[in-house]
Amino acid sequence: MKLNTNIDYQAIAEKLQGIETTSDREGLTKLSLDYYHFSPILQEQLADKRGDLVVFPTTEDEVLQIAQVCVQNRIPLTVRGAGTGNYGQCIPLQGGIILDTTKMNQIMSLKPGIACVQPGVKMAAFDKQARKIGWELRMAPSTYRSASIGGFIGGGSVGMGSINYGQISDHGNLQRVRLVTMEEQPRVIELQGDEVQNVLHAYGTTGIITELAIPLAPAYPWQEAIVIFADFMTAAKFGQALSDSNGIVKKLVSIHADPIPRYFTALQSYIPEGKHGALLMISAYDFAAFEDLVKEYQGEITYSQPGSAIKGNSLLEFTWNHTTLHARSCDRNLTYLQTFYFTLERLEKLYQQYQQEEGGDEIMIHLEFLRAGDKAIPAGLQLIRYSTEARLKEIIAEHESQGAFIANPHVYTIEDGGNKQIDPQKVAFKQQVDPNGLLNPGKMRGYYSTMNNEQ
Amino acid sequence: MKLNTNIDYQAIAEKLQGIETTSDREGLTKLSLDYYHFSPILQEQLADKRGDLVVFPTTEDEVLQIAQVCVQNRIPLTVRGAGTGNYGQCIPLQGGIILDTTKMNQIMSLKPGIACVQPGVKMAAFDKQARKIGWELRMAPSTYRSASIGGFIGGGSVGMGSINYGQISDHGNLQRVRLVTMEEQPRVIELQGDEVQNVLHAYGTTGIITELAIPLAPAYPWQEAIVIFADFMTAAKFGQALSDSNGIVKKLVSIHADPIPRYFTALQSYIPEGKHGALLMISAYDFAAFEDLVKEYQGEITYSQPGSAIKGNSLLEFTWNHTTLHARSCDRNLTYLQTFYFTLERLEKLYQQYQQEEGGDEIMIHLEFLRAGDKAIPAGLQLIRYSTEARLKEIIAEHESQGAFIANPHVYTIEDGGNKQIDPQKVAFKQQVDPNGLLNPGKMRGYYSTMNNEQ
Repeated sequence: MKLNTNIDYQAIAEKLQGIETTSDREGLTKLSLDYYHFSPILQEQLADKRGDLVVFPTTEDEVLQIAQVCVQNRIPLTVRGAGTGNYGQCIPLQGGIILDTTKMNQIMSLKPGIACVQPGVKMAAFDKQARKIGWELRMAPSTYRSASIGGFIGGGSVGMGSINYGQISDHGNLQRVRLVTMEEQPRVIELQGDEVQNVLHAYGTTGIITELAIPLAPAYPWQEAIVIFADFMTAAKFGQALSDSNGIVKKLVSIHADPIPRYFTALQSYIPEGKHGALLMISAYDFAAFEDLVKEYQGEITYSQPGSAIKGNSLLEFTWNHTTLHARSCDRNLTYLQTFYFTLERLEKLYQQYQQEEGGDEIMIHLEFLRAGDKAIPAGLQLIRYSTEARLKEIIAEHESQGAFIANPHVYTIEDGGNKQIDPQKVAFKQQVDPNGLLNPGKMRGYYSTMNNEQ
Repeated sequence: MKLNTNIDYQAIAEKLQGIETTSDREGLTKLSLDYYHFSPILQEQLADKRGDLVVFPTTEDEVLQIAQVCVQNRIPLTVRGAGTGNYGQCIPLQGGIILDTTKMNQIMSLKPGIACVQPGVKMAAFDKQARKIGWELRMAPSTYRSASIGGFIGGGSVGMGSINYGQISDHGNLQRVRLVTMEEQPRVIELQGDEVQNVLHAYGTTGIITELAIPLAPAYPWQEAIVIFADFMTAAKFGQALSDSNGIVKKLVSIHADPIPRYFTALQSYIPEGKHGALLMISAYDFAAFEDLVKEYQGEITYSQPGSAIKGNSLLEFTWNHTTLHARSCDRNLTYLQTFYFTLERLEKLYQQYQQEEGGDEIMIHLEFLRAGDKAIPAGLQLIRYSTEARLKEIIAEHESQGAFIANPHVYTIEDGGNKQIDPQKVAFKQQVDPNGLLNPGKMRGYYSTMNNEQ
């Protein structure tokens, strides 16, 4: 792959007549970032990466035009949504054009059960419309209010709602997607069914998403609740039991070991010092059954309010990676890990182990329950008191040696952050739709390690 | 307990002025039956059991009046819904009054997510109304069109929809219930939350249900489908995979080993001889993803039609115990078992074992997938070619020795058909609400074995 390093971006911007662009320093800086600063390692690796020109298409035709210019001039193209990712998914490692999708924000159609949207539609804004007809997104991250649907599909994987619908990669969670290719003659292709796997969590390396058909979930009147527990493992077991309660409809099961709740300034009065907290969204229809379950686990409900998360006062914004955000706003030394414990036994062992260490707060356990295949499992988004990269690696190794799986959020390639496997299908697909390797170059490790197609 | 065996039922009927009654032989016979004839053992034990008077109350006040008369005269009282059970749940072992609830058929309220009904409301008729506002029952048996909601709560446990909501005993699947007690002065009590466990699958031994508050499920446009497979275990694995596909919304996953489909006269053209069939209800919104999954398992979709099961042409009426019904209409020697295999490995072992026996068709495997606690599991409603009671016991023992759990449908007590355990909470509750043991006497084994309260 040869990228053109001698580009006149002003001339390029002029070629893209009718499409909004920016190349001022402030704009370039802002739109060359995401939340990679959650990781001190990524912070060091990515801090100086900048695009050279940002384009703001509003239509598929404009995307085709941009793709054509990039291919002709061998310019790297990095697609971004709202930039709410944490792994540098949309950081332009090799400069070039940043395609900001936030102005492709039209809901093309919205019907019971299914919607068709442009990628830049914001999730909460979408739900506001969808809930009017009794539906909502199947899943969304804690950045729901600012995140875009296309960004979540391209860079995310799970979130609020995953306790019901699992991961975006589960059969059926994305029905259809339209893509602009980066072939010599860019064109629009449409993927359906399992073909959509090629764009999921691919960081925009396998085509530029221009439209998505997404299945919806029935909207419930959600009741948000905080439950406190004296003992962490009881809180964790309660989370599992709630997740496994087939008769209690829920959307969020988030468990926070003491002292994590101390970082939640706005929730101090609901979670006394020394207590472990569960942050939950439960169907109002099932709230009485939920209260019985709380009693069974000796929990205490300290907060209970209706909340659809569309507004900013939602508990959602203390869960998933917003937990990390709040913690880091108090202490910049904190970072996090993403861990599949799979079982409560393994969780307990690891919890005890780090509790007994000096200080006992190098690792603070934060769990999000989600459906993974045949079960609801506790996934850890533990807070880590960062010291050195070597120590972080050691912690990861300790977890892995006990059978936990870590999806490392301190790397920026697709594979290293995921299951460490090169996905030959995704690589083959990229070779077809992006033969010059111009899309988000450097992110799909498998593409570069297998390609001999220097051009 | 002393029952009055010298009752003038005509005088009793006269006392119950304003309440419809019948004591003609035909009526008494018809309303002293359910589908216990599925079991040759129960058939022999229960065939001659008859009530002496049937009453058809329409209101709670009339139920109170009936209860009062029964208590005063020490008359056994057996409550029945539509009589679609299979274990003699509503058979009057000691005669007496049969309280038929089918005329208590008012929907008291119907709102999104929750309804309040009298016990005699028929399930399909209810859903016809509920679907108009976008909701439906969380679960229902294959006798959905004739079965009553109260009968299902009192005598059932799982059905269509259990792949999502598990068992009726799961937290939240019954919100509230009103009961008339059989105390010296009968009264109305209301159970909420986990207290409702006292009436679930209790065969009407713990009070007379007069009203139920039931949570609903969002209604989908269901698509019914038949998928055929060359290999049984592939069909079973497909059933598990579909059950575990968190992104594909479904309501029914029913797998039938060859030659069971041969008993389905109306489905012959969709399931060729030698093939194994899956009878399914899938959300139309997720049908494309479903088709991909079918391909992955080398299945072939031979039938696909919209169907809400409210009408009589639904695949539902070939699943759950309608499978047994169809088979028995061809061969009266067939009966069935209810088996939790828990894992596909155990299922395969048992499938192979009986396949290799002479004839290979003493046991024909029929699976229904349902959520049981933390997982979706294959439950067997195997057809059994009945020879002797001894052989049936042997088959049960063979299954149990391999770790399968059999909920024996050839016994009429609550405990022996369930988990073989006396439930002290239910027994204590019965002692409180039915101190004379008049409700459906003989069905709750734990009550008689623990009571010293001869009166």
